[in-house]
Amino acid sequence: MTRQASSTHVSPFQALHTLPLNAVEITDGFWKNKQDINGTDSLSHGYAMLEDSGALDNLRIAAGALTGEHRGMRFQDSDVYKWLEAASYELVRADSASLRQQIDSVIDLIAAAQEADGYINSYYQIKFKPEDRFTHEDHDHELYCAGHLIEAAVAHHRATGSPRLLDIARRFVEHIDHVFGKGKREEAPGHQGIELALVELYRETGEPKYLALAEFFVDERGKNTMRGWVHFTPSYYQDRVPVRENDRVEGHAVRALYLTSGMADLYLETGEQALLDAMLRQWHDFTDRKMYITGGAGARHFDEAFGDPYELPDDSGYCETCAAIASIMWNWRLLQITGQARYADVIERTLYNGFLSGVSLDGRAFFYVNPLLVRDSHVREPWYQCACCPPNVMRLLASLSRYLLTVSEREVQIHQYATARFRGDVPGAGSVCLNMETNYPWDGSVTLTVTEAGSGDWRLRLRVPQWCTAAQVRLNGQSVEATFEGGYLILSGPRKAGDVIALDLPMTPRLTRAHPYVASARGSVALERGPLVYCLEAVDQDEAVSLLNVQLDPNAAFQAAHRADLLGGTVTLSGHGYALDLTPWQNQLYLPYDHSSNTARNPIELHFIPYHQWGNRGAGPMRVWIPVA
Amino acid sequence: MTRQASSTHVSPFQALHTLPLNAVEITDGFWKNKQDINGTDSLSHGYAMLEDSGALDNLRIAAGALTGEHRGMRFQDSDVYKWLEAASYELVRADSASLRQQIDSVIDLIAAAQEADGYINSYYQIKFKPEDRFTHEDHDHELYCAGHLIEAAVAHHRATGSPRLLDIARRFVEHIDHVFGKGKREEAPGHQGIELALVELYRETGEPKYLALAEFFVDERGKNTMRGWVHFTPSYYQDRVPVRENDRVEGHAVRALYLTSGMADLYLETGEQALLDAMLRQWHDFTDRKMYITGGAGARHFDEAFGDPYELPDDSGYCETCAAIASIMWNWRLLQITGQARYADVIERTLYNGFLSGVSLDGRAFFYVNPLLVRDSHVREPWYQCACCPPNVMRLLASLSRYLLTVSEREVQIHQYATARFRGDVPGAGSVCLNMETNYPWDGSVTLTVTEAGSGDWRLRLRVPQWCTAAQVRLNGQSVEATFEGGYLILSGPRKAGDVIALDLPMTPRLTRAHPYVASARGSVALERGPLVYCLEAVDQDEAVSLLNVQLDPNAAFQAAHRADLLGGTVTLSGHGYALDLTPWQNQLYLPYDHSSNTARNPIELHFIPYHQWGNRGAGPMRVWIPVA
Repeated sequence: MTRQASSTHVSPFQALHTLPLNAVEITDGFWKNKQDINGTDSLSHGYAMLEDSGALDNLRIAAGALTGEHRGMRFQDSDVYKWLEAASYELVRADSASLRQQIDSVIDLIAAAQEADGYINSYYQIKFKPEDRFTHEDHDHELYCAGHLIEAAVAHHRATGSPRLLDIARRFVEHIDHVFGKGKREEAPGHQGIELALVELYRETGEPKYLALAEFFVDERGKNTMRGWVHFTPSYYQDRVPVRENDRVEGHAVRALYLTSGMADLYLETGEQALLDAMLRQWHDFTDRKMYITGGAGARHFDEAFGDPYELPDDSGYCETCAAIASIMWNWRLLQITGQARYADVIERTLYNGFLSGVSLDGRAFFYVNPLLVRDSHVREPWYQCACCPPNVMRLLASLSRYLLTVSEREVQIHQYATARFRGDVPGAGSVCLNMETNYPWDGSVTLTVTEAGSGDWRLRLRVPQWCTAAQVRLNGQSVEATFEGGYLILSGPRKAGDVIALDLPMTPRLTRAHPYVASARGSVALERGPLVYCLEAVDQDEAVSLLNVQLDPNAAFQAAHRADLLGGTVTLSGHGYALDLTPWQNQLYLPYDHSSNTARNPIELHFIPYHQWGNRGAGPMRVWIPVA
Repeated sequence: MTRQASSTHVSPFQALHTLPLNAVEITDGFWKNKQDINGTDSLSHGYAMLEDSGALDNLRIAAGALTGEHRGMRFQDSDVYKWLEAASYELVRADSASLRQQIDSVIDLIAAAQEADGYINSYYQIKFKPEDRFTHEDHDHELYCAGHLIEAAVAHHRATGSPRLLDIARRFVEHIDHVFGKGKREEAPGHQGIELALVELYRETGEPKYLALAEFFVDERGKNTMRGWVHFTPSYYQDRVPVRENDRVEGHAVRALYLTSGMADLYLETGEQALLDAMLRQWHDFTDRKMYITGGAGARHFDEAFGDPYELPDDSGYCETCAAIASIMWNWRLLQITGQARYADVIERTLYNGFLSGVSLDGRAFFYVNPLLVRDSHVREPWYQCACCPPNVMRLLASLSRYLLTVSEREVQIHQYATARFRGDVPGAGSVCLNMETNYPWDGSVTLTVTEAGSGDWRLRLRVPQWCTAAQVRLNGQSVEATFEGGYLILSGPRKAGDVIALDLPMTPRLTRAHPYVASARGSVALERGPLVYCLEAVDQDEAVSLLNVQLDPNAAFQAAHRADLLGGTVTLSGHGYALDLTPWQNQLYLPYDHSSNTARNPIELHFIPYHQWGNRGAGPMRVWIPVA
């Protein structure tokens, strides 16, 4: 088994250092189960869908190995690249000869499809003439696909050490660099993604022109010229103002957050303050005004876009799975830059809720859209005509271990809790090995065992999640002095092998309100426990109860039940509430105020499950925000 | 001046008889002002926009009188036809040589563009070969455009007596009848409209095959086969089930309500109970679950569609102006069929609110979308790339008098109140003339003077709007015996010239709640007065007040002020409320329940204007549903 380290590049403006892919391994528990299902069921299902959907055939046709018409979306190639990125990470996690073979066969196909000049995009190769290439980049997604090819190539190189896919990507980038740039085609891509990919390629290869090209694409954006069919304005493309002047997240949510991720990557290399300032303004706009309680991003179906501030409808909320992933990517970079826990908090919220809802328990069906209220039904599909989300889920799950820990000078930071092993070099303290054990997110007790202690004093920085108000830490069974700073508990001192640090993050069910401007949550609460947002699913309620018709007693004592038999293991919550008597509303949509204000109600019990687990027992209603009695 | 009567056709299943176009004339007051602006400013502005947008040039190109590319939407011709329909009605209301000339020149153009075989659709004529016609009717709108041509032709014939446009339309219909039908192309149009138009053409000409073709198109729908780009399912096209089996309004709202209007027209001629049953189920689905308080229809931007039951967001609500018009058309037909006031109530609600908001006070700018909450800005545009709404507004305003009165055996029904003169034959009672005077919607006093009394006993049926709980009627200054039945006050007996009937409909400001399932209105009220829904517009509030941040005291005494100087004349309402103290929410989108439930607040005065008048004083926030304190 080859487990290559990641690139040895250290970004100069990183407060926290990311670790090689193989430094952290998730060894058991909640996420191990998700990763195992992803590595087996999802990846093989995904490969079959690449065949079914024509994505692989498109490349075969472009390669001249097959005749026929292009099928699917104009950016269908990106499905292949995202799957390849996921599969490459999976090799690090759980190498397999058959997966390697599948990866190699797909790379063969890409190699065969690539033109002599480096260009590759099956849609354009099949349907258009060479002179048509890059002429409609605002909507034809050639650079977007290139970005995913690069990301796959970097992942494949890091995972296997093989330069094969990396060379293909580099040849395409050389071609792009030949076409785009100052004095050449001066245009930003309509759909972002290539910016962050080019910075990664720079890190992997050390070639500075890739970084320059990333910067060029970031700089080109904001000329207020991009427009699309009928209602698509420059805001949709984040093209309204130059990126350094923007103070909001706007337009198509995935594009917006891939762009900010690329800006963050650029900052990590250049340290340009204006980029960071713009990002911090945008981050506040996102988290103070436009983020769902699930971490979901994007309020509008129409253009898959952010809405106005506080426009966070529960029913028609979009919350595309890809946008949740993009938010995790962006917050991960902001965490590296700043070392501040608030970014890890957003990652946690998104990971356990708005991201994880995107995939079924069996790993073979996916939500594109993740609403917070479903009145009728909303079901995960095996694949989509626009299949951006499923392989995006796969690449995040396969590479999830990267988000758990970072290091810096004489310090290890633990951001996310999972049963995992860390083995790596801590700058100034040498080789350290830690075993982390936890039943997170079902309970908040985390045990860290030092199995290799490094040398001298070093700090262990443990994130206390924002939701936790009573964190406790003990060292070898004894209370220990720890400082609390910026959302982290810090334990200092020399460590010895066998040291056991026990962190307790009590998970008391809690009720959360939204800002009064959020209409969908007005007069309502969400129930949360630990990192999990809960929801009501119709299947768990008494038959007579309609989810639209319930109120929650905010003084209810919620009963938590660990249920190994349900939903592959879960913790359910039950509490007291009411069902409204709707008799006065028979055939009435609007009534005078005084007639309807004294609505009678009947007591009921309400049964909650974690939001991310909903929709795994057939179709039916679901609801997160519950009016309070 | 030629003022032709409408067709002499009497639909056999009409409980109430519609009147010829010239039987009712709006002579003064609120609607006269709207009609005058429409007849001058809007129609001339509209003609200029038909030139600007390429709509007329498209016909010139199709006619071979101009060379160039087709411009605009594939259904751009329909803008011309709707303008022509409006202009034709305007001739009845206020004949003008210059408008006649403009109308004739447009008809010349259409005549020149029509193919020898009767076909006319500039988009197809310019861009495609003859064999391509009608091959993508599910999205190419050829039959939709034909429907608008027919409606224009019938209006023009009724207004002028000239058969010229009618003949053009009939030739196209002959062509369509040659292509579509049993054993021919068995398909329904993707966008409805032709169904009701064909029934009108049948009424105007007496040609039964037009009625048969309308029925064919209604019958063909519901095969569950229509699908469009990515997310457009059969529901979008009302093609999920056969129309007689449907029990909901679903999909694209304008299509859905043009279809039901066509079904109603079909019922009026055939009396087929299954059609009426389906419509009544759909009507309840609409008015009990899917209609905005403004009468607006369509909750979703994404597909311009109805949402789930009770999915009525205020901010992202669609409420297309065309859908409001379509609802008025449908309810008008249901009123004819049943004689029940509830349909006139929906017409009133829609007319004064969700429809009228669609046009600016100067008649030269239009909303396509009519939300109930605007956080930032939403401005009326002079025209749209998809310009369905502006000329649709024009044709409704120009023909508005038709909605005021109907007659039946020895009875006159007054459904809508306006200063107007009715002169016509009442079956069994001979010639009757009534003058109606009122300052409606600003106050509820209506005076009816009989100037020609007819013969023998006949009934006067006066609608008491649903909102009015204290209607009073007097005859010649004395109290009079009147029965109240099905939403109407009925005065019986012989009338004599000079009789004065005074109806008083007191307009006390009132607060209205929505069904508890409507999230956007949860814990909130709307302020109404008479037929008008009120709103807060930022420009009327104290500078420090944010509309998102207010509560209304439900016990407030609202002060009504008649303001001739404001918005071309209005009645404003003011009442007591509060501004929330948002200090705890600084940089917080979600907080624990107990921390945020005791929100402090400061008393303020809130100043309301009628919803339909908002947005006429620059861009800014607006809000209908206001949380109660």
